[in-house]
Amino acid sequence: MASSDQDVTLLTFWPSPFSMRAKLALLLKGIEHEDLPEDLGNKSKILLESNPVHKKVPVLIHKGKPIAESAIIVHYIDEVWPGTSPLLPKDAFLRAEHRFWSDFIDKKLLDCFMRFVHGNDKDAANEEFIANCVLLEGALTKLGSTQEGPFFGGASFSFLDVMLAPFVVWIPGIVGVMGLKHASEEQCPRLHKFFEAVSEHPAAKGALPPVEKLKEFIQVRFAVKK
Amino acid sequence: MASSDQDVTLLTFWPSPFSMRAKLALLLKGIEHEDLPEDLGNKSKILLESNPVHKKVPVLIHKGKPIAESAIIVHYIDEVWPGTSPLLPKDAFLRAEHRFWSDFIDKKLLDCFMRFVHGNDKDAANEEFIANCVLLEGALTKLGSTQEGPFFGGASFSFLDVMLAPFVVWIPGIVGVMGLKHASEEQCPRLHKFFEAVSEHPAAKGALPPVEKLKEFIQVRFAVKK
Repeated sequence: MASSDQDVTLLTFWPSPFSMRAKLALLLKGIEHEDLPEDLGNKSKILLESNPVHKKVPVLIHKGKPIAESAIIVHYIDEVWPGTSPLLPKDAFLRAEHRFWSDFIDKKLLDCFMRFVHGNDKDAANEEFIANCVLLEGALTKLGSTQEGPFFGGASFSFLDVMLAPFVVWIPGIVGVMGLKHASEEQCPRLHKFFEAVSEHPAAKGALPPVEKLKEFIQVRFAVKK
Repeated sequence: MASSDQDVTLLTFWPSPFSMRAKLALLLKGIEHEDLPEDLGNKSKILLESNPVHKKVPVLIHKGKPIAESAIIVHYIDEVWPGTSPLLPKDAFLRAEHRFWSDFIDKKLLDCFMRFVHGNDKDAANEEFIANCVLLEGALTKLGSTQEGPFFGGASFSFLDVMLAPFVVWIPGIVGVMGLKHASEEQCPRLHKFFEAVSEHPAAKGALPPVEKLKEFIQVRFAVKK
């Protein structure tokens, strides 16, 4: 555990996949911090002042300085506390690969996920979601194959594992409440193993909510009829 | 100039602002490289194979390994060739700031820029474009103020300067051909000085096309009536 004088605060909203990433990185590194849960219907002064451009969680405040956007926060955490659980690979090309697939998750996977939740053409969005999972399966096979273990980082969490981890609860949440079809174990065997391994990891248990609790949130948030 | 055995190839399309960033970073670092201009109407096998997910330029191929997405390419170039013209600041918080505003340029500035070009409500898009320029002016004042000079990096180009540089030709291009209103010098004095300084920089002259040439492209590409 890092020393207690780190002065680290995390503005969060528990169902936010972006908040989960920041929280997970802090737990993996063993960084003592205070959580400040946000009411997004009535945003706090500290959120509006620390992220005036986007007004969104998560925001990490370290020694009074705010850092916003989950990918940037996870980079920052890894750079300031590099010793414990290093997240980004040392090799520049592998780092580029991690950044590429992290960007893919935010641009492509999240996009069809949200189009399934909010859009009219759910079948097309679901099909694209599965195709994107298959692309991620390829990345996991390629990046994970340099080391033994279920993660993109082999036996331990890496940057990309942190970026994908919130889907481990969000996918079953949307599958359970809204009928999303997930990629099958035949299509994505490594991804399924990754999901299992994340679910069982102590830091992920601390950063991700139980699927049943998230399902209740999804039910209410998206006004899904029972 | 770096040694000639770097084995660096850049797949480009000259009007692409994303290609310009990669080219600019290579020129700033003095990295010998070969340009492979792409015909986006008839994409090359090497583009489709090296960026199968997005099939877009730019792609940097270094010693046979492809890196895609401009922000990731500029990170990679800075990490592999750190000595000459360092781009990302050494301080982790400043690095986070550079990444934040780079992300802002790609998400917010580019978004209203494209809505002005393609959308129906050009007035609203133009208003938002100017508001985003004012936010960038604030960032430039804050980040540039630690050192003398017109750039986000003070007297020399930094990561964020590279990421914003293509707008130095694209904004006058869209202003000239399609009537976009730019933020005034009163609203954004530092941004105007930044634009002037970029225009006069030798590396930028090598990476950015002349505005008049870009205007001809915009005229044809967006079928603007004369």
